[in-house]
Amino acid sequence: MADQAPTAAVLLIGDEILSGRTKDKNLGFIADYLTVLGIDLKEARIVPDIEDEIVQAVNALRKRYTYVFTTGGIGPTHDDITADAVARAFGVEIDHHPEAVEILLAHFKTIGREPNEARLRMARTPKGASLIANPVSKAPGFQIGNVFVMAGIPKVMQAMMEEVAKRLSGGVPMRSVAITVEAGEGDIANPLKEIQGRNPGVIIGSYPFEGSRGFAATLVLRSRDETALAAAEHEVRSMAEALTASGKARGWSQ
Amino acid sequence: MADQAPTAAVLLIGDEILSGRTKDKNLGFIADYLTVLGIDLKEARIVPDIEDEIVQAVNALRKRYTYVFTTGGIGPTHDDITADAVARAFGVEIDHHPEAVEILLAHFKTIGREPNEARLRMARTPKGASLIANPVSKAPGFQIGNVFVMAGIPKVMQAMMEEVAKRLSGGVPMRSVAITVEAGEGDIANPLKEIQGRNPGVIIGSYPFEGSRGFAATLVLRSRDETALAAAEHEVRSMAEALTASGKARGWSQ
Repeated sequence: MADQAPTAAVLLIGDEILSGRTKDKNLGFIADYLTVLGIDLKEARIVPDIEDEIVQAVNALRKRYTYVFTTGGIGPTHDDITADAVARAFGVEIDHHPEAVEILLAHFKTIGREPNEARLRMARTPKGASLIANPVSKAPGFQIGNVFVMAGIPKVMQAMMEEVAKRLSGGVPMRSVAITVEAGEGDIANPLKEIQGRNPGVIIGSYPFEGSRGFAATLVLRSRDETALAAAEHEVRSMAEALTASGKARGWSQ
Repeated sequence: MADQAPTAAVLLIGDEILSGRTKDKNLGFIADYLTVLGIDLKEARIVPDIEDEIVQAVNALRKRYTYVFTTGGIGPTHDDITADAVARAFGVEIDHHPEAVEILLAHFKTIGREPNEARLRMARTPKGASLIANPVSKAPGFQIGNVFVMAGIPKVMQAMMEEVAKRLSGGVPMRSVAITVEAGEGDIANPLKEIQGRNPGVIIGSYPFEGSRGFAATLVLRSRDETALAAAEHEVRSMAEALTASGKARGWSQ
C-alpha cells in the first residue's frame, strides 16, 4: 500500500541559497504540504542559476518521480533562466504564452506600469505548458508534463501551491505519531530496533534533542495503515514510559 | 581566477527533512561558512535514510566536487546508516575505529553509562577514514577521501565544522556587496543586464522582496576581484539611486 503512493522531488533553483544569503523556506513548506496530500517527497536538490545544471537536474528528477516541484528563477531579470532551462530539458521551444501576456498586460494597466520587454519575459513558457495562477503578483508559473515551475518568493510559491494541489493525485495520507522519551539514543536503540522488526508496516525514526535534564529523543512513527500504526504506537509508548521512569536521561550523552 | 576556487556539495541525509518534520538549518550554516573560506558551494541534495540513495548521491557528488559535506544519520539507532552507505560508496569495509572506541568508552565511563553495542555502533567508520572530533557529545564524525561525514544535530555539526575547516584549502574568499533598490524588477532588469554585460568578472543577482512602499529588490554583487567589484558596485549604485528617486516602487508589481 505504501508503495503505491505518488512520489515527488523538489528542485530549488538559485545562487542565493547556495551562497548562504537566502535561507530557504520553500522546501519545508512543500514537504509539509505533500505529507498532508499523501505524496511521498523522496528527494530534493538545490542547484545554481546555471542552465546546464538546471536541465540535468530536471531531467534526472522528472524521469524518476511522479511529480517535480521547482522554485525560483522565473522573474524578469537576466539571472532568471528557469523557463529556458525547463524548455531545453523537455526539448521544446519557448515563447510568450498568449494567456500569460494577457494577464500581465491587464495587470500592468491596472497598476499603471509600462509593459516593457523585461516584464513580458515573465510570460515566456515552454511550448505545451499550462499556466499556474499567481494571485499574489500575477506573473504565472507553469506546468509541463509532471514538472511544476513556481516562484521563489515564499508567499508567491505558497499561493501557487494551492493551485497546483488541485492537479495532483494524492495517495492515502501518511499518518504519524510523535512520542518523546527522556533517555539517550544509546538506551533507546536496542528496544526500538526490536519494535521496528515486529512492525514492518510502520516507519520509525529517532530524532535526538537536548531535553532539560539531558539528552532526549522524539520517536516518530509513520504509516498509511491506522491499525498498524496504533499497534506500533502502543509498543513504543510502553518502552518510552519504562525508559523515562528509569531516569536514564540524566547527564549528557547519546 | 574565480574558476580556480575549490568547489563543494552538501548532502543532507534524513527522512525527517523530506517529511517536513524537521526544518533543516545545516545547509544555510555550511553555505555561509564555505563562502567565508572561499569555497564555492555548487550543489546540495537531500536524500532519505535509504542506503542505495545515499550511496548513489555520495558517489555522484564526490566525483564532481572538491569537497562533499554530509550531515545526519551517524547516531546509534537502526535508522542511522550513513557510515555503512559511505563505506559502500567507497567500496571499503566498515569496522569499529579503535580511537573512536576509546573516545566513547572514556566518555561513557565519565558520565556513568553502560557501553552497549548500540552506543559503540557510533565508533564504526569505513576503513581508511580519519575521525572528526566532536567536542559537544563526543561521538566523532569522520573523513574519507574528500567526503566529510558529520552529525545532523546543528550544534554538533557546527562544532565538527570547526574541526573540518582546518583540513580545507580555501580559495580567495568571495567578496560581496548588497545594494537595495526601491523599484520593481521589471524596471531594474534592462539596466542591470547592461551592467552585467560590462562587468563579466562580477556575478550579479537580483532578489525581489516586498518593501514598505511596494516591491523592491536587493542586488547582490559577488566577485573575488576587489577592483572589478568596486567598478560594478559604482555602476549599480548609480542605477539604484536613479530608480529609487524615480519613485517607481509605488504599487505592487515586479
